[in-house]
Amino acid sequence: MVVKMKTEKQIKEWEKRVRRVVPYTPGEQPRRQDVIKLNTNECPYPPSPLVERLAAEFRAETLRLYPDPDASELVQGIAGYLGVDEEQVFVGVGSDDVLAMAFLTFFNSPKPILFPDITYSFYDVWADLFRIPYRRPKLDGAFRLVKEDYLKENGGIVIANPNAPTGTEEAPELIEEIVARNQDSMVIIDEAYVDFGARSALPLVKRYENVLVVQTFSKSRAMAGMRVGFAVGSRKAIGYLKDVKFSFNSYTLNAPSIAWGAASLRDEAYFRETVGRIVATRERTKGELARLGFAFPDPRTNFIFASHKTIPARELFCALKEEGIYVRYFDRPRIDDYLRITIGTDEQMDRVISFLDGYIKKRGM
Amino acid sequence: MVVKMKTEKQIKEWEKRVRRVVPYTPGEQPRRQDVIKLNTNECPYPPSPLVERLAAEFRAETLRLYPDPDASELVQGIAGYLGVDEEQVFVGVGSDDVLAMAFLTFFNSPKPILFPDITYSFYDVWADLFRIPYRRPKLDGAFRLVKEDYLKENGGIVIANPNAPTGTEEAPELIEEIVARNQDSMVIIDEAYVDFGARSALPLVKRYENVLVVQTFSKSRAMAGMRVGFAVGSRKAIGYLKDVKFSFNSYTLNAPSIAWGAASLRDEAYFRETVGRIVATRERTKGELARLGFAFPDPRTNFIFASHKTIPARELFCALKEEGIYVRYFDRPRIDDYLRITIGTDEQMDRVISFLDGYIKKRGM
Repeated sequence: MVVKMKTEKQIKEWEKRVRRVVPYTPGEQPRRQDVIKLNTNECPYPPSPLVERLAAEFRAETLRLYPDPDASELVQGIAGYLGVDEEQVFVGVGSDDVLAMAFLTFFNSPKPILFPDITYSFYDVWADLFRIPYRRPKLDGAFRLVKEDYLKENGGIVIANPNAPTGTEEAPELIEEIVARNQDSMVIIDEAYVDFGARSALPLVKRYENVLVVQTFSKSRAMAGMRVGFAVGSRKAIGYLKDVKFSFNSYTLNAPSIAWGAASLRDEAYFRETVGRIVATRERTKGELARLGFAFPDPRTNFIFASHKTIPARELFCALKEEGIYVRYFDRPRIDDYLRITIGTDEQMDRVISFLDGYIKKRGM
Repeated sequence: MVVKMKTEKQIKEWEKRVRRVVPYTPGEQPRRQDVIKLNTNECPYPPSPLVERLAAEFRAETLRLYPDPDASELVQGIAGYLGVDEEQVFVGVGSDDVLAMAFLTFFNSPKPILFPDITYSFYDVWADLFRIPYRRPKLDGAFRLVKEDYLKENGGIVIANPNAPTGTEEAPELIEEIVARNQDSMVIIDEAYVDFGARSALPLVKRYENVLVVQTFSKSRAMAGMRVGFAVGSRKAIGYLKDVKFSFNSYTLNAPSIAWGAASLRDEAYFRETVGRIVATRERTKGELARLGFAFPDPRTNFIFASHKTIPARELFCALKEEGIYVRYFDRPRIDDYLRITIGTDEQMDRVISFLDGYIKKRGM
């Protein structure tokens, strides 16, 4: 072979063809073991003991086969749990995968899709990825949707309810009105946090073809490590979603995800107990934070989005981190004086409150 | 709410915005238990006992946390196994995920990418999905690459080596020449089947920035059910791939995939033994098929792509299926007289051969 290697220092031709992106910065996954990790909205409790048992009994020899491409066991489980038909359920590798697939499937209009300026940070990323035009109407001063913004011409709508990172819930009547008055568009309701006391848009699925409700096993079911999410919609909408998904990837959810996800649904008592504990801890923490001078929109999530009356959020974020307490801080317009604090165990929240108490006193505030 | 529901029968406006696709038909996953399943190139043997042990010991309580987004344990395992740096390894949910991500990352030129007319059936699907122009030069009559076709101007190149569904291997020298003479393009070598006796392009990764070698745990490591694939390339190329991946999805491989995939790499003896058995069964099966009047390109894969001298492939496909033996048949130009037969256990192949023997005799051929 006598082909000369190119060795110039400058950007090479093949690199010019690389897709340009703005890399995303996820919440830190600290390697330190002693950290109190309240920065990625994980559940402080383990998944159901039923999942534990299924995991212990998992027959690894079955792994030689491809997983069921329809993930039937999991789909049937979700359909049964929610009282919808199997043909109304679509599953994916976490709700991120489900949402991205829904963007790709339903948002093919030259009109812009709509979602709030402050919301889950991947919506604009997926829109850019799939070259979907979008507009981001501003939430009002209390971080609430301005309904009229979503009654204008659009190519689709995405609403996280409860919203992230604000934690606010919009009323079911408002969501229904937006769905009902946009029957030319698909309206996606991202309910990642709905189980922590908010009201779901699931009843709308029976009445409107143009609504897709997306949920996840990562938060309330304590299975973030498993990557399981799902969408519920009209038979027609789910059919379109499946057509697109299967057109370019047959096998996504792996065998343990299907089996263990299904198991989680069979332990309703544990699910309710876990969610109840987190909600109780949240309500108690709200009182403590208010006492310390924090303000926050009323959370319907497993996190509180809080701002202190005098001490900048960035300063508190750094002080907490130094103490080994990781929360989330977003250096973005309108929310750069807020901390997103995941609800951990009672003991963890006690440590957070006691540290903040001491810190605020020391600062003489 | 007094919004009138739309009830027309015709295609509604929201449906007009749905992405139009041609759904893919994967190899059948029969529900019958007594079937001999030789249609999706799965491994007839289980994964390493080490995987079995890790699975039995899996601590389900860790699932409450997101998986390591870098999948470090698995990446380190692959890097150590192959003798490359960690920064040269990218992992994904099966090699389909890895390949799709590579298309998205590297193929952003207005010039067409190139891959053969007969090859893995997802390449054109991903190209369509990402709106990448492509050309499909014809393989020659023996299903071999025509080198000159890949020395023309292009926006990138994809070569499955060994090729699917033909099973043929191109020489490392040919692959290197294509890589070396296309240094303005990324050249992806899809080595899903390389472990069954073919020569890898991995050594090229040290010498060329513009080559990406993609492999999978689904075939030779018997972990199709787990969805684990990976790419090896220059530090620069892998960096670009990671930037794109993390820009829109932080968490893909789940916790068991990372842990069990890594375990598989630590049992080299079992890996070699399994691959050795499959290769031995293949060589024996080749002899038997030739004796029965089949012709086939010399396979370097865990399947044989065979055509009978007189009996049409479609007829044999149906007869085999009736007997409970599932192989793969592609109703496509140039390959519609071939069967793709996965190599199973010796016992399974004996049953295939004995059935074919009887069938061919009965047909008086």
